Amino acid sequence: MRDVNVGIVGVGNVGGGTLDILAENASQIADKLGFRLKVGAICSRSIDEKKLPAGIEPGRRTRDWRDVVADPSIEIVCELVGGTGVAAEIVETAIAQGKSVVTANKELMALRGAELWEKATAAGINLAMEASVAGGIPIHAVLREGISGDRIEALFGILNGTSNYILTEIEKHGTAFEEVLAEAQRLGYAEADPSADVDGFDARSKLAILAALAFGEKVTPSDIYTEGIRRITPFDFQYAHKLGHTIRLLCSARRTAEGLLLSVRPALLPQQTIMAGVQGAYNAVWVRGQYGADTFYYGRGAGPHPTGVAVVSDLMRVAREIRSGSPERVSPFAHETLGARKPAPVASQQRAWYLRFRVTDKPGIIASLASILAEKKISLDAVLQLPSDDKDNLPFVITLENSAEHAVRDAVARMASLDFLREPPLALPMETSL
Amino acid sequence: MRDVNVGIVGVGNVGGGTLDILAENASQIADKLGFRLKVGAICSRSIDEKKLPAGIEPGRRTRDWRDVVADPSIEIVCELVGGTGVAAEIVETAIAQGKSVVTANKELMALRGAELWEKATAAGINLAMEASVAGGIPIHAVLREGISGDRIEALFGILNGTSNYILTEIEKHGTAFEEVLAEAQRLGYAEADPSADVDGFDARSKLAILAALAFGEKVTPSDIYTEGIRRITPFDFQYAHKLGHTIRLLCSARRTAEGLLLSVRPALLPQQTIMAGVQGAYNAVWVRGQYGADTFYYGRGAGPHPTGVAVVSDLMRVAREIRSGSPERVSPFAHETLGARKPAPVASQQRAWYLRFRVTDKPGIIASLASILAEKKISLDAVLQLPSDDKDNLPFVITLENSAEHAVRDAVARMASLDFLREPPLALPMETSL
Repeated sequence: MRDVNVGIVGVGNVGGGTLDILAENASQIADKLGFRLKVGAICSRSIDEKKLPAGIEPGRRTRDWRDVVADPSIEIVCELVGGTGVAAEIVETAIAQGKSVVTANKELMALRGAELWEKATAAGINLAMEASVAGGIPIHAVLREGISGDRIEALFGILNGTSNYILTEIEKHGTAFEEVLAEAQRLGYAEADPSADVDGFDARSKLAILAALAFGEKVTPSDIYTEGIRRITPFDFQYAHKLGHTIRLLCSARRTAEGLLLSVRPALLPQQTIMAGVQGAYNAVWVRGQYGADTFYYGRGAGPHPTGVAVVSDLMRVAREIRSGSPERVSPFAHETLGARKPAPVASQQRAWYLRFRVTDKPGIIASLASILAEKKISLDAVLQLPSDDKDNLPFVITLENSAEHAVRDAVARMASLDFLREPPLALPMETSL
Repeated sequence: MRDVNVGIVGVGNVGGGTLDILAENASQIADKLGFRLKVGAICSRSIDEKKLPAGIEPGRRTRDWRDVVADPSIEIVCELVGGTGVAAEIVETAIAQGKSVVTANKELMALRGAELWEKATAAGINLAMEASVAGGIPIHAVLREGISGDRIEALFGILNGTSNYILTEIEKHGTAFEEVLAEAQRLGYAEADPSADVDGFDARSKLAILAALAFGEKVTPSDIYTEGIRRITPFDFQYAHKLGHTIRLLCSARRTAEGLLLSVRPALLPQQTIMAGVQGAYNAVWVRGQYGADTFYYGRGAGPHPTGVAVVSDLMRVAREIRSGSPERVSPFAHETLGARKPAPVASQQRAWYLRFRVTDKPGIIASLASILAEKKISLDAVLQLPSDDKDNLPFVITLENSAEHAVRDAVARMASLDFLREPPLALPMETSL
């Protein structure tokens, strides 16, 4: 069969990793496909200085992505620019020209995936995006093909490696969030502006894509309740451990009678669960199907080579489909005939809670807090206080029996004015279903 | 697009689970595909008594599989009979008639997968076999598509749920192997003849298939060094825990300069690894890629519905390919241009070892054992003895530094004649690379 020519637009980390694999692994790729995957064109802002791996000899090297997309020899456009500006233009132009697209762009696919898929389907081309979520974990292939016959009930994820690294460092060393973040920035694990990672927005984009694929509903990032990890302290890990739990930035999507329940938030997970064992910059996805029950997927969340594997695997699949037909003809983003349903309100969900307080010690604290909880009809499960000498900054924890989030929020708001509190109470859900 | 008609041959556990899912999940399947998957024919020995799920109304119900394969309306033959006799005939006849095949048959695919794939490729049809390994884990989709761009260096698996259930019961309750096995048989978790499970043969078939897919080499079950779990005692878990390890029936396949290193055997795994956390009847696969690094996959190993998900997901993929082209044209069993390489000899591998002895206590035991090890140039790492009152049946453990398996085997053979040994020493490798 004829070789397939790929145009790479963007040679940053992921682009570099992709080129390495296409070069070094070329013969195995050709063996698997029965034809070669060739890099026919490369676009990069710094194309003159870029040293390409041996064996990558594109006919075209350019600074203008339009040259790549317009090149008639290019059959797949590989968008590795990122962001939602020029990347959107690249993808739309490629689709308009009837060229298949492979992208690693989580923001774009989270925001406009359903719409771009409709265009791709209408154009009869393939839009592949394995690399957009959880770099090294082939979770798209799993949802799209591996367990496509199942009916997904819930999906949980640890989808931001930087947050997970920070949380597990706080956990292991008892270091404060700010210190761990500064160290992560120094090591290059966290961005200078860490907000996308530590405030949950990066994870939110990824969850939007996975939830759309898993449930066939249109999900946009703004549908997802999102809370970051800035308030998690070493105290919280001490108390969580005492309760047999750990804390992770947990992405979750559940099918309920009221619609999908979607959130990205720090939550307590039982320590003996497999999800709780996910350490450092790793990512993980837990899927619960009506028929297949629980399955779990784990791997590197990022990095040039793990993400490059996702890009190259997508290129191989799309190339095979170009030579033999069979692009998916139904958008994986919205196959539900029900149409776009509104997500369920997170606040009405019943669950167990962890409330952590930091107080200036004085008599009557528990009584005041308990009376506010009682007023909101919230049942207290346990009060936990580890030994501490610092009476001016005393942490302790109250766990709550299953309670609706809106009631807990009301109670927490009422508590905010209590003079013995050093900061507003921290309320974290306890994830008991994993 | 036109509906695709499926013929189901065999309505046992997996067939029943498959029909449930095809019936109950029909509308979501049709939404995902853009056409319906219909059960056009069913063959079962007890077809008259079989009650089919609502919505499954095959035009043909028969006791003779030939009726299904010959039915011109049937486009996919789903072989769920099992075994290597009539199942092989069914698959070969279907391929000869140009019909795609979906199978859950691990024995057949392990023994004759490469040959059947060649026939399928020549006939231009698809042969799908996700359900043949690790029922609920979509590991074929992962290897075939999700990480197809990577170059696999090693694959580890816990692939027999019954063995893993037995081992984790011994571990949790300190009960002897025979008792746990009897209980598992009573509960229906283990067969009346447990050999395929506890002697490693079932896991061996699965590893043969996964190794072929992961490395593109022809692997037959007899290539794989295989050892079962019958000799594992509660003592072994106590000692393993003391060493920070647990014991699992570990399948492993590694690429080495001498060829693939293949084994199914009980091994010590560090307790803090994710693989060590795999409990009960679950299955798991750990894949190490040159580019994507480590990924891990976990789920139910068996059961009508988890395995049914694998079958239905395969049916969906094959049906899509029938309507839109694109069956794989290169056998996933042997894409290496190198051709069929011989596996590497397990015995030459260097690794750390756990040697467990049961002795009648007397002076000089350690000295005798140590002198045999010294003679074979094997370095002792540690001697470990937990408190025990039973001097006539005293267990203890010696761990060894990295040593070649043939040297350890020689030493163990030399030890067998020592009069203080109650049974031959148990030698288990320590898997340090997970």
